[in-house]
Amino acid sequence: MQNAKIGILGSGDVGKSFARAFAAVGHDVMIGSRTPEKLADFAAELGERGHCGTFEETAKFGDIIVLATLGTAAEEALRMAGVASFDGKVVIDATNPLDFSGGMPPKLFVGHTDSLGERVQRQIPAARVVKAFNTAGNGLFYKPQFQGGPPDMFIAGNDAGAKKIVAQICEAFGWGVIDVGGIESSRHLEPMCLVWVLHGALSGSWTHAFKMLHR
Amino acid sequence: MQNAKIGILGSGDVGKSFARAFAAVGHDVMIGSRTPEKLADFAAELGERGHCGTFEETAKFGDIIVLATLGTAAEEALRMAGVASFDGKVVIDATNPLDFSGGMPPKLFVGHTDSLGERVQRQIPAARVVKAFNTAGNGLFYKPQFQGGPPDMFIAGNDAGAKKIVAQICEAFGWGVIDVGGIESSRHLEPMCLVWVLHGALSGSWTHAFKMLHR
Repeated sequence: MQNAKIGILGSGDVGKSFARAFAAVGHDVMIGSRTPEKLADFAAELGERGHCGTFEETAKFGDIIVLATLGTAAEEALRMAGVASFDGKVVIDATNPLDFSGGMPPKLFVGHTDSLGERVQRQIPAARVVKAFNTAGNGLFYKPQFQGGPPDMFIAGNDAGAKKIVAQICEAFGWGVIDVGGIESSRHLEPMCLVWVLHGALSGSWTHAFKMLHR
Repeated sequence: MQNAKIGILGSGDVGKSFARAFAAVGHDVMIGSRTPEKLADFAAELGERGHCGTFEETAKFGDIIVLATLGTAAEEALRMAGVASFDGKVVIDATNPLDFSGGMPPKLFVGHTDSLGERVQRQIPAARVVKAFNTAGNGLFYKPQFQGGPPDMFIAGNDAGAKKIVAQICEAFGWGVIDVGGIESSRHLEPMCLVWVLHGALSGSWTHAFKMLHR
């Protein structure tokens, strides 16, 4: 892809990271904001490829648009940019519907209010339920062999002692372990199953597994 | 963890994979079903550590219980096993709320009926929206350096040409690419953001990224 015009809606850390990356690979970049005058210094840092503008100017500038606002601001930014500004264009939606109103960690404000893991814990309230082994096919449960392995199993549950036991089981089976919190995090692990399934369905291959890389 | 008793609810491929794995690492296993007599041969294959029983017998047998039924059968299996059978026990919930009634790929029957990615596509219907760059922190967008890398970016969108362009961008930035289907798959990628966030919050480190390992 040669020298495209990239319009970036949102000027927080995410938008700025996109702007630097697109400039670094040789594209012309406009970063957009409600208050573009605050971005003049940043745009200048990008060199001659860097520009700043309103949301509308930025959307009209870009052949490719990146939506990089806070999730809560995404729909308002599109409205301000003007719906017709996007017609036919590639729009990279990098937003997440994060709700920080309850503090950390955030929740999702679109979609997820329950999970089968939570239903199971509610049905057997005196049990110490741990969601695990739901993000990989059963053919991979025991001693999965991958270049770059071992893969990681994601676990969630309310009881720390139970998670420790399940982590030992995962490790004995040949998996790394990533703890993602209480049983309500099943809301996030159950959709990950579908990422695994959809990649299998689209690639026609079922021998894949998630790993969390660390620096 | 030495020689525990493991009760496995569900005798499909998932339950059988668990039974073989737990037997292989030296635990006593009972696999449970509505029709345990059909499992006698399978239990015998596991050797002297292998047993089969009803859901109730299996739940009472296990110090650790694995829920490995179809998602649609999970709550009925718990009811048949008897809620009190689980009191104080570690329960590994490996189920997923998969609804295959509409064919492949399945949908989730708990929770997910919309996403911010779909909202964005609806708001700018003539744009070619691709969900991307939402499953990693912005500090990692450009040339992420990992042992075992490059990490993978998960993308979803309705327009194949747009996804091809976004895939080229991901690759230029130093990422592998996993296509997980139409924009409705944002329902699964947005929760993956929270898996990334929760691991950061619990580990106190924010330099991690997903990779899909392949054999």
